[in-house]
Amino acid sequence: ARTGIPEAVFCDGKTIEHLQVILTEARDRQARLFMTRLAPDTHAALAGTFTLDYCALSQTAIFGGLPDGLPQRDKVALVCAGTSDLPVIEEARRALAFHGIEAPVFADVGVAGLWRLMSVAEDLSRFPVLIAVAGMEGALFSALAGLVPGLVIAVPSPVGYGVSAGGQAALTAALASCAPGVVTVNIGNGFGAAAAARKIIG
Amino acid sequence: ARTGIPEAVFCDGKTIEHLQVILTEARDRQARLFMTRLAPDTHAALAGTFTLDYCALSQTAIFGGLPDGLPQRDKVALVCAGTSDLPVIEEARRALAFHGIEAPVFADVGVAGLWRLMSVAEDLSRFPVLIAVAGMEGALFSALAGLVPGLVIAVPSPVGYGVSAGGQAALTAALASCAPGVVTVNIGNGFGAAAAARKIIG
Amino acid sequence: ARTGIPEAVFCDGKTIEHLQVILTEARDRQARLFMTRLAPDTHAALAGTFTLDYCALSQTAIFGGLPDGLPQRDKVALVCAGTSDLPVIEEARRALAFHGIEAPVFADVGVAGLWRLMSVAEDLSRFPVLIAVAGMEGALFSALAGLVPGLVIAVPSPVGYGVSAGGQAALTAALASCAPGVVTVNIGNGFGAAAAARKIIG
Amino acid sequence: ARTGIPEAVFCDGKTIEHLQVILTEARDRQARLFMTRLAPDTHAALAGTFTLDYCALSQTAIFGGLPDGLPQRDKVALVCAGTSDLPVIEEARRALAFHGIEAPVFADVGVAGLWRLMSVAEDLSRFPVLIAVAGMEGALFSALAGLVPGLVIAVPSPVGYGVSAGGQAALTAALASCAPGVVTVNIGNGFGAAAAARKIIG
Amino acid sequence: ARTGIPEAVFCDGKTIEHLQVILTEARDRQARLFMTRLAPDTHAALAGTFTLDYCALSQTAIFGGLPDGLPQRDKVALVCAGTSDLPVIEEARRALAFHGIEAPVFADVGVAGLWRLMSVAEDLSRFPVLIAVAGMEGALFSALAGLVPGLVIAVPSPVGYGVSAGGQAALTAALASCAPGVVTVNIGNGFGAAAAARKIIG
Amino acid sequence: ARTGIPEAVFCDGKTIEHLQVILTEARDRQARLFMTRLAPDTHAALAGTFTLDYCALSQTAIFGGLPDGLPQRDKVALVCAGTSDLPVIEEARRALAFHGIEAPVFADVGVAGLWRLMSVAEDLSRFPVLIAVAGMEGALFSALAGLVPGLVIAVPSPVGYGVSAGGQAALTAALASCAPGVVTVNIGNGFGAAAAARKIIG
Amino acid sequence: ARTGIPEAVFCDGKTIEHLQVILTEARDRQARLFMTRLAPDTHAALAGTFTLDYCALSQTAIFGGLPDGLPQRDKVALVCAGTSDLPVIEEARRALAFHGIEAPVFADVGVAGLWRLMSVAEDLSRFPVLIAVAGMEGALFSALAGLVPGLVIAVPSPVGYGVSAGGQAALTAALASCAPGVVTVNIGNGFGAAAAARKIIG
Amino acid sequence: ARTGIPEAVFCDGKTIEHLQVILTEARDRQARLFMTRLAPDTHAALAGTFTLDYCALSQTAIFGGLPDGLPQRDKVALVCAGTSDLPVIEEARRALAFHGIEAPVFADVGVAGLWRLMSVAEDLSRFPVLIAVAGMEGALFSALAGLVPGLVIAVPSPVGYGVSAGGQAALTAALASCAPGVVTVNIGNGFGAAAAARKIIG
Ligand SMILES: Nc1ncnc2c1ncn2[C@@H]1O[C@H](COP(=O)(O)O)[C@@H](O)[C@H]1O
Ligand SMILES: Nc1ncnc2c1ncn2[C@@H]1O[C@H](COP(=O)(O)O)[C@@H](O)[C@H]1O
Ligand SMILES: Nc1ncnc2c1ncn2[C@@H]1O[C@H](COP(=O)(O)O)[C@@H](O)[C@H]1O
Ligand SMILES: Nc1ncnc2c1ncn2[C@@H]1O[C@H](COP(=O)(O)O)[C@@H](O)[C@H]1O
Ligand SMILES: [Mg+2]
Ligand SMILES: [Mg+2]
Ligand SMILES: [Mg+2]
Ligand SMILES: [Mg+2]
Ligand SMILES: [Mg+2]
Ligand SMILES: [Mg+2]
Ligand SMILES: [Mg+2]
Ligand SMILES: [Mg+2]
Repeated sequence: ARTGIPEAVFCDGKTIEHLQVILTEARDRQARLFMTRLAPDTHAALAGTFTLDYCALSQTAIFGGLPDGLPQRDKVALVCAGTSDLPVIEEARRALAFHGIEAPVFADVGVAGLWRLMSVAEDLSRFPVLIAVAGMEGALFSALAGLVPGLVIAVPSPVGYGVSAGGQAALTAALASCAPGVVTVNIGNGFGAAAAARKIIG
Repeated sequence: ARTGIPEAVFCDGKTIEHLQVILTEARDRQARLFMTRLAPDTHAALAGTFTLDYCALSQTAIFGGLPDGLPQRDKVALVCAGTSDLPVIEEARRALAFHGIEAPVFADVGVAGLWRLMSVAEDLSRFPVLIAVAGMEGALFSALAGLVPGLVIAVPSPVGYGVSAGGQAALTAALASCAPGVVTVNIGNGFGAAAAARKIIG
Repeated sequence: ARTGIPEAVFCDGKTIEHLQVILTEARDRQARLFMTRLAPDTHAALAGTFTLDYCALSQTAIFGGLPDGLPQRDKVALVCAGTSDLPVIEEARRALAFHGIEAPVFADVGVAGLWRLMSVAEDLSRFPVLIAVAGMEGALFSALAGLVPGLVIAVPSPVGYGVSAGGQAALTAALASCAPGVVTVNIGNGFGAAAAARKIIG
Repeated sequence: ARTGIPEAVFCDGKTIEHLQVILTEARDRQARLFMTRLAPDTHAALAGTFTLDYCALSQTAIFGGLPDGLPQRDKVALVCAGTSDLPVIEEARRALAFHGIEAPVFADVGVAGLWRLMSVAEDLSRFPVLIAVAGMEGALFSALAGLVPGLVIAVPSPVGYGVSAGGQAALTAALASCAPGVVTVNIGNGFGAAAAARKIIG
Repeated sequence: ARTGIPEAVFCDGKTIEHLQVILTEARDRQARLFMTRLAPDTHAALAGTFTLDYCALSQTAIFGGLPDGLPQRDKVALVCAGTSDLPVIEEARRALAFHGIEAPVFADVGVAGLWRLMSVAEDLSRFPVLIAVAGMEGALFSALAGLVPGLVIAVPSPVGYGVSAGGQAALTAALASCAPGVVTVNIGNGFGAAAAARKIIG
Repeated sequence: ARTGIPEAVFCDGKTIEHLQVILTEARDRQARLFMTRLAPDTHAALAGTFTLDYCALSQTAIFGGLPDGLPQRDKVALVCAGTSDLPVIEEARRALAFHGIEAPVFADVGVAGLWRLMSVAEDLSRFPVLIAVAGMEGALFSALAGLVPGLVIAVPSPVGYGVSAGGQAALTAALASCAPGVVTVNIGNGFGAAAAARKIIG
Repeated sequence: ARTGIPEAVFCDGKTIEHLQVILTEARDRQARLFMTRLAPDTHAALAGTFTLDYCALSQTAIFGGLPDGLPQRDKVALVCAGTSDLPVIEEARRALAFHGIEAPVFADVGVAGLWRLMSVAEDLSRFPVLIAVAGMEGALFSALAGLVPGLVIAVPSPVGYGVSAGGQAALTAALASCAPGVVTVNIGNGFGAAAAARKIIG
Repeated sequence: ARTGIPEAVFCDGKTIEHLQVILTEARDRQARLFMTRLAPDTHAALAGTFTLDYCALSQTAIFGGLPDGLPQRDKVALVCAGTSDLPVIEEARRALAFHGIEAPVFADVGVAGLWRLMSVAEDLSRFPVLIAVAGMEGALFSALAGLVPGLVIAVPSPVGYGVSAGGQAALTAALASCAPGVVTVNIGNGFGAAAAARKIIG
């Protein structure tokens, strides 16, 4: 579209019929699509008719394949504390790939063990953009932004219970971060973080 | 500091004695400081002893002047709907200046009159980063991000009453924006938006 | 009833036995009924005994058919951003039809692409009442009200996740709209918006 | 403006200098203005230079007088429970007057004494639009809408304490009303209710 | 127990084994029990071993039967707007019966049609205690308390959606009621209202 | 009034002129009035013209004196943890006196020292109604209701900070009490508790 | 780890594959693991490959057995009101056992019957640390801390409905406790309370 | 008192007369008192009559001096990010002193600069109890608990704006901390943290 972002479809709340119309129309004009919040059985109902690269962990699908040419590298890093955050990490990683950006994942660098975070600090310091995913209390966002010069895009993850149920505690942690230059997207919005990263690295 | 951001001081909740220690120490090591949330009478108590470039509208002060050399231009635009949002716009504009970035202000482009926003759309399209400030319902964030290719950093402004009192409605509007690639900082955090912009434009 | 509104039944929380009593009593006095929040299996349990025009998308049923005579036209428009909002649009459209009002649907005019909204602005300007349905951040309400002279009745839709889960962000956007003359009903209350529209166009 | 609503200025958060610019510009192009949330001392600072019809109770000012010609009558009624709600009633009444609409006030019809409400029910039944203002628990909205055929525009009033502090309880009462056809504006937004009423009665 | 209230068991969150221990122990000391929040399949698992008078609508069970002697009459009335509130009404009615109190139900007196409420006002006026159950916006509480001299015990009911989902709007309506002398219990707590009524009528 | 409650005036949000009209009208028809939330300077402005029995601690005034005849005794007790809750206790005590009820105050029986509460348990057990006022976490409500047979009317008090600021924690404690038969009124609503007590003891 | 706490795994949101990797890695380095929020079917999928001591009530598993040597006794007591709180009690009890601490459970000492709590007060007074679990209004925390000299670690339990749904009321009760020296962990976090207790008793 | 904690007085909401009674009574029985939330002018009104060791920064007073004997050392450390948190740190430090515990302050170890925190990690590791005070996003709690073996008592500080206004973001960060063994007290409750620390170190 005119704002430079290829199309994405938010599938939650759409019927199978609606998604078929959208996919048929994309096929007709040879467009690529990135689909988010696509539940496994909705995907199964579409998979007979359309060729979709589906990922059940992140509930995303890519229609029309990745862009041609070599992906951009060394621009964006993906950082999280552990395996509970991987669904959101994967949504971001695949959205970046859809935009032609290849991003490595640093998946075991939570604040509960600051040493691991410190030990990759130098490595992380060469990325201009870092997408950080954290649930619970979201302390990773501030700790990371206090360690590296790149821009930290915080994605609160809906991992937690009690006061952190649904990602609220991590969201306020990201917004209230006293480390300057942390920016935030909605809870679980790996796609939005990828779209912002793509705008930044041009 | 090691993360590449000059120092900022959050003055709310600090006593005059504490601020004097911080400023004295900065003067001794010839450091520049950007001060936020500096109330007029706290400033008045410091102004006799320290040379501060103070702005009452945004409650910010610059100690040690602007950086040498020509400022960066044509990189960051500041956008808001009207004069109520100017305190936050000014905090961002002055923080950018403190970082050596000169940013023009587009101050009358609210959603209530979409024509004005449309009429500057082309002009705004040449900026890689746009800091948008909006209170009330914050519809500006999505409308702007749907019009221009640059990254929109949303700063919710604490302008409004009832459900928008304190900036909450604008904050959720920014986070929930259906326009991909909008990123958000805390309510009223013009300083944080400027710090992020500086990281992006390098 | 004395306030001029035909009867509606809110079915959520009512047992099948209760609904049978209500429908039997309506049949006996030859009354028409509009049923909202009627789940598919509750409908299935009633469909053997009563003739219901059921719509699974909006979970509404019409008992007793539409009113006689030509429907009113060119009075009310239905506007939304996309297919996720169609359940609420359909509740409103069918409730209007039940009241004898035929309303066209403009279903692809979201704020993420302002051009589409602008391109139908003239068309929309001839309606005295516009029912707008939007989820996520609800920017459509303000953008629309800034473009057309008619009254905008905002219906927040429970589409979204994170801060917009359940429709809260869209609700505050509608209430805080800086475009004068936007009025709001409860999240997902297409029926209420239709009832208000009917009162307005007399 | 193009949407048919004369201009209004939200004065809260604007400096005196900003308001002087707005008023001067209005004077130059001979425009009328309606000003809301204008605090008494801000008004005092402007009163020397500009001729303002100011009302301290509602904190509104009219610049440029009322429109020429006879006002519209018998179209809009203003209803509230008691004197605590009068600031909001007055904002609505004066905004209606600014739009050329004269609206009577029924100020003592709260739900705590249903007889008084019942005794004016017939009188209220001849108005196509009723602006109802209520704080506390806002039961007036549903009771009124259950009695009269006209459209009820609910304005929650920031009167109350504890759970009703700031008008939140009345707001949810308006939105959740089981009386079909109640529409709502933001807490304390008498101006918005008047703008909507004007759109409805054409 | 020493506070004069027979025993009640809150079954939600208790395992079948725990409930068996409680019931066995009650059987052994020939005690009566009132069980709330007893899900149908939990009841089914207990029904083989224990004689329970179970009500699926209110999810309550009585173990050990009703008290001997004639029930108290004309002391407590149960009032609600419609069939959606009957689960809570039934919990209260059965808890009263367990305490030896027989209470009539007035089930169709919602605020959306004030006439019905007015027409039973005289009838309701002879009860010293009225337990009122309402969901949605809960306007019934204030309307009723403005009509009758008895004490109104408000039980917000978890009926509604959007802002009234889960009973929150009705709860704040009860607490903020401008009709003096309304008292409130937790959302859906028909049992608690019955316990209070019993204490009052001695 | 018809519901048997003498008149009370909620003074917050009313101008001095409005209060003068209300008092003059009461004087003319020789009515007694109970005034709540009457700020000291508003009282001072009225005190020249009207004879008011004013209490600054509870911000209440009695106009027209106490009722004739001997007050009712031994029916209602007032219970709180300490001196911070006395403003609310006094509002309730004076409202009871206005209704002709004399109630003793037990002011030092907080949960932090259970012995003191236990030591007055027998004394408290002879009252059919106990109005309990507590801020902070409101544990007094449940502890008291577990000790005495009378009805406990809980009045959350706006004493506390952090999570208990404004009385919210005490309010949820009252509503969620697992001691059967606790009923609640709005935060700080000593007047409402007194009105309920009066209805109960007839 | 370096902070002296054996490892725990939060299983909610982790796939079976992730958990297999974690368990395999623990087996390889002969480490013990404590697993929380392990759903029964996830456990079933792992039970074939790994020897897990699983508890369905608390949804916890111990891998690698308990520590060698005699457990610590008489240091930590576990206290709750009733059987609904046992899932959380069990999570704490098993986590303590995993740390080599044996803690007795006092499971029937709720505030609704203060006598039972009083009767065990002396017994409880010899424990330096007491982990208290309570849902509903959480009055147990303050009552207990007012009775015993040991440190009370409050664990709000997600038992309740309406205002106490999910444990929120109990959480604010714990934080706002007027009994000095109560500390709190997240709702349902029996594991965290055990970890803190272990740090305290060394 | 019997629970082993000397007396503390929460002064907010108490009148000067009440405080005089409390102090007089303490003087008579030669008791020491710790006073919190004592505003400067309330202190000034008492200072003529009573000898109070007052600290304006923390709004605390000590009556009756410190305990005899050498204070306990090397048991409790106080940790915060900067000068804005010092009011809360001081309340805790003085409450500890009142209990006979001397605690050093580490005041410049925020997460925005992880190096400073790392550089004192070894020093902090020798304290069995660490009271950590943090506002904004409260990332300090998790970072600290991941570095040191002692128990971390988190005190959220009411420093911040927007989503962290009043300390809410820091509170949820503390409760949701993924570092095991963090316990929490109410926002700003330095006194409570000190009371807990005293119970722990005996
Ligand atoms: N207005 C502001 N909003 C958010 N962070 C800020 C603001 N002003 C300063 N800061 C940051 O807050 C951190 C703590 O500041 P200080 O309390 O002054 O040490 C510093 O890292 C600043 O960069
Ligand atoms: N979806 C809906 N939202 C709001 N009100 C409704 C809805 N459906 C029906 N109603 C109204 O709810 C009121 C109570 O309905 P009932 O419980 O069926 O008597 C009636 O006045 C209906 O007009
Ligand atoms: N009290 C009010 N509530 C809501 N909107 C208002 C109010 N007063 C003025 N407005 C509208 O707010 C918009 C922005 O106002 P301004 O900031 O003055 O440019 C204008 O479109 C006004 O119509
Ligand atoms: N539905 C209910 N709502 C509130 N309290 C209840 C309910 N059912 C039982 N209770 C009370 O909850 C307390 C704890 O119950 P239990 O967990 O069964 O020991 C008892 O004192 C019961 O009186
Ligand atoms: Mg995490
Ligand atoms: Mg704005
Ligand atoms: Mg939408
Ligand atoms: Mg009112
Ligand atoms: Mg209802
Ligand atoms: Mg208290
Ligand atoms: Mg409990
Ligand atoms: Mg901090």
